[in-house]
Amino acid sequence: MRVSRYFLPILRDDPKEAEIVSHRLMLRTGMIRQESAGIYSWLPLGFRVLKKIEQIVREEQNRAGAIEVLMPTIQSADLWRKSGRYDDYGAEMLRIKDRHERDMLYGPTNEEMITDIFRSGVQSYKDLPRSLYHIQWKFRDEIRPRFGVMRGREFLMKDGYSFDLSAEEGRHSYNKMFLAYLRTYKRMGLTAIPMRAETGPIGGDLSHEFLILADTGESEVFFDRGYLDMDWTTAKIDNDDVAGLQGAIDEFTSLYAATDEMHDAAEFETRVEAGRRVNGRGIEVGHIFFFGTKYSEPLGCVVQGRDGEPITIHSGSYGIGVSRLAGAIIEASHDENGIVWPEAVAPFKVGLINLKAGDATVDKACEDLYAKLEGAGVEVLYDDTEERAGAKFAVMDLIGLPWQLVVGPRGLADGMVELKNRKTGERESVSPEDAVTRLAGRK
Amino acid sequence: MRVSRYFLPILRDDPKEAEIVSHRLMLRTGMIRQESAGIYSWLPLGFRVLKKIEQIVREEQNRAGAIEVLMPTIQSADLWRKSGRYDDYGAEMLRIKDRHERDMLYGPTNEEMITDIFRSGVQSYKDLPRSLYHIQWKFRDEIRPRFGVMRGREFLMKDGYSFDLSAEEGRHSYNKMFLAYLRTYKRMGLTAIPMRAETGPIGGDLSHEFLILADTGESEVFFDRGYLDMDWTTAKIDNDDVAGLQGAIDEFTSLYAATDEMHDAAEFETRVEAGRRVNGRGIEVGHIFFFGTKYSEPLGCVVQGRDGEPITIHSGSYGIGVSRLAGAIIEASHDENGIVWPEAVAPFKVGLINLKAGDATVDKACEDLYAKLEGAGVEVLYDDTEERAGAKFAVMDLIGLPWQLVVGPRGLADGMVELKNRKTGERESVSPEDAVTRLAGRK
Repeated sequence: MRVSRYFLPILRDDPKEAEIVSHRLMLRTGMIRQESAGIYSWLPLGFRVLKKIEQIVREEQNRAGAIEVLMPTIQSADLWRKSGRYDDYGAEMLRIKDRHERDMLYGPTNEEMITDIFRSGVQSYKDLPRSLYHIQWKFRDEIRPRFGVMRGREFLMKDGYSFDLSAEEGRHSYNKMFLAYLRTYKRMGLTAIPMRAETGPIGGDLSHEFLILADTGESEVFFDRGYLDMDWTTAKIDNDDVAGLQGAIDEFTSLYAATDEMHDAAEFETRVEAGRRVNGRGIEVGHIFFFGTKYSEPLGCVVQGRDGEPITIHSGSYGIGVSRLAGAIIEASHDENGIVWPEAVAPFKVGLINLKAGDATVDKACEDLYAKLEGAGVEVLYDDTEERAGAKFAVMDLIGLPWQLVVGPRGLADGMVELKNRKTGERESVSPEDAVTRLAGRK
Repeated sequence: MRVSRYFLPILRDDPKEAEIVSHRLMLRTGMIRQESAGIYSWLPLGFRVLKKIEQIVREEQNRAGAIEVLMPTIQSADLWRKSGRYDDYGAEMLRIKDRHERDMLYGPTNEEMITDIFRSGVQSYKDLPRSLYHIQWKFRDEIRPRFGVMRGREFLMKDGYSFDLSAEEGRHSYNKMFLAYLRTYKRMGLTAIPMRAETGPIGGDLSHEFLILADTGESEVFFDRGYLDMDWTTAKIDNDDVAGLQGAIDEFTSLYAATDEMHDAAEFETRVEAGRRVNGRGIEVGHIFFFGTKYSEPLGCVVQGRDGEPITIHSGSYGIGVSRLAGAIIEASHDENGIVWPEAVAPFKVGLINLKAGDATVDKACEDLYAKLEGAGVEVLYDDTEERAGAKFAVMDLIGLPWQLVVGPRGLADGMVELKNRKTGERESVSPEDAVTRLAGRK
């Protein structure tokens, strides 16, 4: 993409309304724009990040055997009355009357609807187990939305639901999602720690939150340093090996970890030796629940067992805040000059900077690099404008693409261009050919 | 995907509420499920089709130089009051009050918001031209929603917006979108005819609808048979060649074509000789508008010209009904046995039918074919269940995958499997190796 044809409304100054760094940087880089309190448009740069996050979430859901569907944003109030949550949910639920004065609502979550869909689509024990998920906009009418996309009113969430014949099988489905979540965050360059959690309005008695560590995080967290050394990615875990998976999950949850809400200072001191106690900050980026028959019972989600007997389905639900992750990743990865994107979610991999647009030699070298990189499948944002070099550098640092490729007349005279690593700040002088080889190789 | 692990709730009987064939087939095949009047869930099979349509739309928008963003579903009423459309829009607009009693609405379209986004992001004539688009759920509170996703209340739409410095340049942007639309429909296997249209609540004085031909279409259409012989795909058109593109669009709109609303019987008879007059039925699948300064004026969308003078932006808007297309394609492509998917939008390319699940030889041959096809990037729905053959055939015909690959003990004894073309009904006996080669080759 050429900057001269892109829509990249960078703000010169820090927006006053932004209290936290991700909100400030998302506004400044023109990733998002506030339309109403807690409601944002995703501008081109932000949209690309959102899509990358969404795609990683999707791939790991599919890998765990979950099947994608898409439920509507607007729901009828009737189902929520059946489950008893219509009145429970309070003012956070955006209630709507349609032109026929029917009670509708903008879905804050989908336990009722998916249970009803599943109920009407299956008859027999043979149709289980299944996990269904969707990635859809939700609305929660927060009384004081703030922190940008970290606590918005309209937000994109992946919510998945498992359906099993027994509590034991349900636990296995829960474990599969647990593992899928760890893999999802890892792919985004995040260190996520699972913590036992309250179940709140979703219900049930087994629940974990996943928190990523960020100095600017909203929650205080207490955990055993051992979590920082665990590497789930190297563990060979077979999703279908029930005992093996349970063992792995038991290991991943064996050390102490709690948010301030669940923290028990006495237990922390007993279980964790002093040198291993970490007291830091974290951001919740996922929450999973196993609630058994809480929704299947009132909604009549029953199948016929092997001998004809009725079996009430056991379920769990599994949420990841997709739009929230865009902010959370920035909280976890930025410096004084701007965002530092992990490669997997960066809007572009490379920022190509033309130091002398209009100079035939430099233009030609840039066009050539641009074409070769794009041809090799590398996503490039090419700054071909006539801005001065200093401004171009500042913008590239601000928007945080992993690599900057700087092309100017002086370097070219020696047949060289400069490759800068945004994260480490390292710069190297390389030939244009080497630059392409290296950037195309590091997929 | 294995049927034994999929969620494919096929209905045995025709749903009574469905008046038109696409609605009936989408419900029967378990593509969608009605949640409220005019509000649907997209179940796994339908979701796959929706995503394929969306992706084709996206690719052709990007190819035309449009940039993707994502605006929220919920909008503040304030912007609509500025443009004067808040009161104009009537009861079709879903009006909402949030917990602070602020007037909000579920966006039926986005002219106001995108104009405001663009206004706040640009200063100078150098920032134009630009086209921005998004693919987002919309809501129009139809008084009597019907025909399934063809006239729903919550629907997925691609809406794009162009921003230019003059009416002439705006016309060029309009023409680029015109061409992008023709390419989009063609890729989905549809014959679309552009027809001059009323501008309705969007406004402006230049507008075209795109209608695809389907015997079951909602609108009566009158057109010159010559349209059926025009092939836009072979035309070499350079998007940046202003006169050349205008010439092509003039040609594509030179023949008579009108919906009943705009039809002029006398003109039809004068301009079209008797043997070339076609009176058929069609379905609207896109609508484009050029409305100049209608929104930029009240919303103050002005940039600084080359000499510092203020220039009010000229705009157009361009809509494609993404979810509606799923229904429209079925209306245009089905037979008495079910859907006949064009390959580009089919949920899977191949249905692999195991005629004797449980038989070691047949299972092995199927597993082998399944692995090889998936390995070659072919999307396969593998019916590995113990259903009887007749039921499997009926379901595969009903869901309309382009190819069926039938594997049974008798054929295998001769080293053969059967390849069936869903559209033509042709069957061929081929070796498993040939089947893979042919299906992997026909991308």
